[in-house]
Amino acid sequence: MKYLFRNDYSFGAHPKVLSALAETSLEGNVGYGDDAYCDRAKALIRDLCQCPQAEVQFLIGGTQTNFTAIAAFLRPWEGVVAADSSHINGHEVGAVEATGHKILQVCAGADGKIRPEQIEPILERHRDEHLVKPRLVEIADATESGMVYTKAELTALSEFCREHDLLLFLDGARLGCALASGANDLTLADLARLTDAFYIGGTKNGALMGEALVISNPALQGDFFRIKKQLGAVLAKGWLLGVQFEALLKDGLYFEMARHANAMAARLQSGLKAKGWKLWVDSPTNQVFPIVPDSLKPQIDAVCHYEDWCPADGPGYTIIRFVTCFNTEKSDVDGLLAALPTL
Amino acid sequence: MKYLFRNDYSFGAHPKVLSALAETSLEGNVGYGDDAYCDRAKALIRDLCQCPQAEVQFLIGGTQTNFTAIAAFLRPWEGVVAADSSHINGHEVGAVEATGHKILQVCAGADGKIRPEQIEPILERHRDEHLVKPRLVEIADATESGMVYTKAELTALSEFCREHDLLLFLDGARLGCALASGANDLTLADLARLTDAFYIGGTKNGALMGEALVISNPALQGDFFRIKKQLGAVLAKGWLLGVQFEALLKDGLYFEMARHANAMAARLQSGLKAKGWKLWVDSPTNQVFPIVPDSLKPQIDAVCHYEDWCPADGPGYTIIRFVTCFNTEKSDVDGLLAALPTL
Amino acid sequence: MKYLFRNDYSFGAHPKVLSALAETSLEGNVGYGDDAYCDRAKALIRDLCQCPQAEVQFLIGGTQTNFTAIAAFLRPWEGVVAADSSHINGHEVGAVEATGHKILQVCAGADGKIRPEQIEPILERHRDEHLVKPRLVEIADATESGMVYTKAELTALSEFCREHDLLLFLDGARLGCALASGANDLTLADLARLTDAFYIGGTKNGALMGEALVISNPALQGDFFRIKKQLGAVLAKGWLLGVQFEALLKDGLYFEMARHANAMAARLQSGLKAKGWKLWVDSPTNQVFPIVPDSLKPQIDAVCHYEDWCPADGPGYTIIRFVTCFNTEKSDVDGLLAALPTL
Amino acid sequence: MKYLFRNDYSFGAHPKVLSALAETSLEGNVGYGDDAYCDRAKALIRDLCQCPQAEVQFLIGGTQTNFTAIAAFLRPWEGVVAADSSHINGHEVGAVEATGHKILQVCAGADGKIRPEQIEPILERHRDEHLVKPRLVEIADATESGMVYTKAELTALSEFCREHDLLLFLDGARLGCALASGANDLTLADLARLTDAFYIGGTKNGALMGEALVISNPALQGDFFRIKKQLGAVLAKGWLLGVQFEALLKDGLYFEMARHANAMAARLQSGLKAKGWKLWVDSPTNQVFPIVPDSLKPQIDAVCHYEDWCPADGPGYTIIRFVTCFNTEKSDVDGLLAALPTL
Repeated sequence: MKYLFRNDYSFGAHPKVLSALAETSLEGNVGYGDDAYCDRAKALIRDLCQCPQAEVQFLIGGTQTNFTAIAAFLRPWEGVVAADSSHINGHEVGAVEATGHKILQVCAGADGKIRPEQIEPILERHRDEHLVKPRLVEIADATESGMVYTKAELTALSEFCREHDLLLFLDGARLGCALASGANDLTLADLARLTDAFYIGGTKNGALMGEALVISNPALQGDFFRIKKQLGAVLAKGWLLGVQFEALLKDGLYFEMARHANAMAARLQSGLKAKGWKLWVDSPTNQVFPIVPDSLKPQIDAVCHYEDWCPADGPGYTIIRFVTCFNTEKSDVDGLLAALPTL
Repeated sequence: MKYLFRNDYSFGAHPKVLSALAETSLEGNVGYGDDAYCDRAKALIRDLCQCPQAEVQFLIGGTQTNFTAIAAFLRPWEGVVAADSSHINGHEVGAVEATGHKILQVCAGADGKIRPEQIEPILERHRDEHLVKPRLVEIADATESGMVYTKAELTALSEFCREHDLLLFLDGARLGCALASGANDLTLADLARLTDAFYIGGTKNGALMGEALVISNPALQGDFFRIKKQLGAVLAKGWLLGVQFEALLKDGLYFEMARHANAMAARLQSGLKAKGWKLWVDSPTNQVFPIVPDSLKPQIDAVCHYEDWCPADGPGYTIIRFVTCFNTEKSDVDGLLAALPTL
Repeated sequence: MKYLFRNDYSFGAHPKVLSALAETSLEGNVGYGDDAYCDRAKALIRDLCQCPQAEVQFLIGGTQTNFTAIAAFLRPWEGVVAADSSHINGHEVGAVEATGHKILQVCAGADGKIRPEQIEPILERHRDEHLVKPRLVEIADATESGMVYTKAELTALSEFCREHDLLLFLDGARLGCALASGANDLTLADLARLTDAFYIGGTKNGALMGEALVISNPALQGDFFRIKKQLGAVLAKGWLLGVQFEALLKDGLYFEMARHANAMAARLQSGLKAKGWKLWVDSPTNQVFPIVPDSLKPQIDAVCHYEDWCPADGPGYTIIRFVTCFNTEKSDVDGLLAALPTL
Repeated sequence: MKYLFRNDYSFGAHPKVLSALAETSLEGNVGYGDDAYCDRAKALIRDLCQCPQAEVQFLIGGTQTNFTAIAAFLRPWEGVVAADSSHINGHEVGAVEATGHKILQVCAGADGKIRPEQIEPILERHRDEHLVKPRLVEIADATESGMVYTKAELTALSEFCREHDLLLFLDGARLGCALASGANDLTLADLARLTDAFYIGGTKNGALMGEALVISNPALQGDFFRIKKQLGAVLAKGWLLGVQFEALLKDGLYFEMARHANAMAARLQSGLKAKGWKLWVDSPTNQVFPIVPDSLKPQIDAVCHYEDWCPADGPGYTIIRFVTCFNTEKSDVDGLLAALPTL
């Protein structure tokens, strides 16, 4: 039996979430999210965000949430500024473009973050009316490489966006691990205040599926249900999402799981360093990115599931990815470390 | 406590389906449907369809399955022939049009069915290259009004489509109740043989969510995963769909539930007739459509959840809809009948 | 040599328009419509419309102007209310749907007009958030069957739209003949005031090509150039459109040609009646629609070019269409009348 | 009066083209390109291409031709490989993405060309089904920086594409100048043989407007008129395009004009070098790209129209562009050279 470090969606739901689903399964509820569970979960999220006017919408998955929000917020001639390494640019089969919008790529570094000074030349160049109009900046927290935005960084980005009439949208597929990270100083309330919309990812942190989109900018809230339905993002048995988010958020389970996943990743990261492994980035969240010689790959394959991330700079080296989650045990980490060779 | 007859997605999953989900929740599985449960469920479906070459794809919901299949199968200038009363035309916020395809509406009668002679004038008119090219006929079994296609009807439609180079796609959101109906003489194997693609609806028959799309036409099978991902229809924890469809189909639970739902609807329908109620159609499946005087509505509202379907022909009358499902008890039907007035 | 009555785009430009193009051809102008001719033509149009705040945009053809305006004005989940017989619904290969918007068809009568009471049930039905949101009413003047809106009719429609937060967009591909008709009591200023946007068709009234879109609603004016470019509707040598519209409008040539076309059509219509021909509608513009026995078709084919319009109510009869234009001579009309049989 | 070197679409049509249009203006022709001029021009093009099975389609402008062809050729999940500096990527307001297709950018050098070894890593990376499927390679001849493909280069690219099941589409907006260049060894027949589709640009070489798309791959030919109409690319008075292309191609006028434009550019380029000006690339066609100190810009502005191309590598320097065309006189070049300062 190999150790499972391939990703944070290899297990179903946290037992408490599953229990909540089971308990409510046969009680009978109205469809499409028009139920009391969704109402309560939305209220909980608005409270946590200290944003009573926020519109909260539950969707099923991350790719879907990204393109639905972008399609809802933009006009046809408007484009999205995003990191070249972002999930929307490189892992979603052109879903944003399929809704008609061009992604204007920022060449982000290994941390996957976007900074105002990287957006400026894009704005400058796109004053020309023969190009799309940059209108929305998409970032992720944690980023694709597991890094987190600081409050100072997000504030700077937010101010820049507001000065330049740009919307700021944050992909929160791994928001739990970001906010639970030691490197983080942001709160949900900060996110609601500094972005126009963001989402709280459930799929990668203990739910069967589900993302909670928080639209704090009132100008973007209207008619959202219609586009959600049009794009296939409305779950008929919508209360399943409300039940899960209530279970995740009412007693802090969501952040507890994320802290656990981060702690397991930190333990793995330290252990690898102790064994002489090099890392691509020093990740403060639940993803760990060793740089390994290709010759070592068969030995790693033999003991665990993981993912090839991308070729490393030097020839003969690959960046690989280990991911932890709510269900990663300390014994899994220690077992993996014991099974991996020293470099 | 009101009786619940509003729809067939008011309850979660059948207990056996839920157990299967719970048992497998923490065992660890690869994502995106690349797991053993999906493989086994696909094999099961290919067997039931007697169609070893069929491509089986799991998607999350009905609207999503409809537009994803249509977008995958058609070229930009091709249109969909569908009943004016079809779900894709009137209940999905223009999802098909949002993928760029025009719906060419057939004025279907109360039974919601399409017949070759209704398609012919559309083909005739659209020979003109200034109009879209009709390329796919979309039908549903059961139809929106709960009626089922006979083998003779589907064979005639299939032959017509093949003669005229039209694809035939069947929306099977309520396929369980259709195939389990006493009025039905079709099998899954017939559907695989007579259509180019169809789906076996899970959401409305005992699953938390999930539709199994069966693409029997090899020309339509390529690259389907990519468009499914692009349109947000890939579940990260894809095995959840495989687990559910295996539980639904391996021991006949799927058809057992459908037969039960149909029997409950038949009981309700007979009971209503006995009380002097008029029906819009004589439904052989799990939807019952009484025509009620508007003055009666408050009394009905007081005892049950149901849906207003559409205005009836006569002024002051409305067609309403009662729906049964796997979780409708005989006592619910009898209780409702007792609570409703005689006409 | 057969008489040419097939349509109003069978000839190039009016000689004065062509001269203007020839004179300016080699003088050198900046591209994309950023030239003095376009500026002057726009000013002329704003003056004629008594609407100094109007945004005027030149596009190349009618289909293009229809879908570009609709795509620019609507959000993805919004639909277009239009006559089933409208050009956008039945002659443009689903161009509106290709931009993602559903057309909600009004069953218009032979006159092709839409009335508020026909829109009301559509609004009523589409309150349901599982349907597209009706947001724009599209009409044409003249309509597809050559009829014109009266000021009273357009005012009623405009008021209804404003009360119900609907945009009103008028397809003016044949606006010249509509405004020049004896049945008309509308002015360009009325159109600018009563609609949100409309266009002055050049292609069907003496230009090589070109439509002048007048957007009087300031909320719809922003960024129009970008979407025009994105949808291929910007002419590189944009001054060609400005030169033509200046030539058409500065001395009344546009309306003079339209009056002539209408007069020729009236002469033809009277002549046909005198010969015992039946007409589908009594057209006040440049299209004439006889109802002819199919047995007569070979005789008509032998003497002129015309178009089959649609089957007539009675079997064995077809509605055909004759169209006149700026270049139709009185001798053409009289010659055709002489050549056609008496009924 | 300033010298006009801003672009090759600053003048209308060559006098011979304009005469042809004038002569045929009032003779009466059937619409939509179904006329004898279009037929003859298509036959002429098929002959020049030595490709009797080619489908020839006339469209109005370059952006339109690019996105219409791409939308016609691709399925929704397929992407376009193109140079980052290509017109479709940076000058068309995201028109390709507006049809739903992602552009996979190749980082081309100053010459703007794509080579097989630059496509390989894109194919490698996109084997992953979570990314779009690269399916079409788009190149331009001349490129955006005025360079031309050699027969060896295009052959290598063509072979690579065929080996990897990629379509090859060539943007020929400036094909005249490319084929007329001294650096060129390709013929129209080579293009028809080595690409799947390409177009012969009229707008930038002596026509009022118009591009002739040549689809040599039979698999891409079907139903093209319908998508052309859907995307607004059908000219009602379609013979205007046939008349122009016949005039351009029947006696070699097209290549004569291109040779002239190239000669004028070469004269300008040599003259600038003689005055000590530095050039970004040594252009063999009708575009010249000097690198000028920003301090010099006011002096250049005072004597001519040109375009800022992009910032040069060194700070304080800009790459600017001069363009010649059929109507550029030797005296214009010499006058400009005399008026510009020595560096």
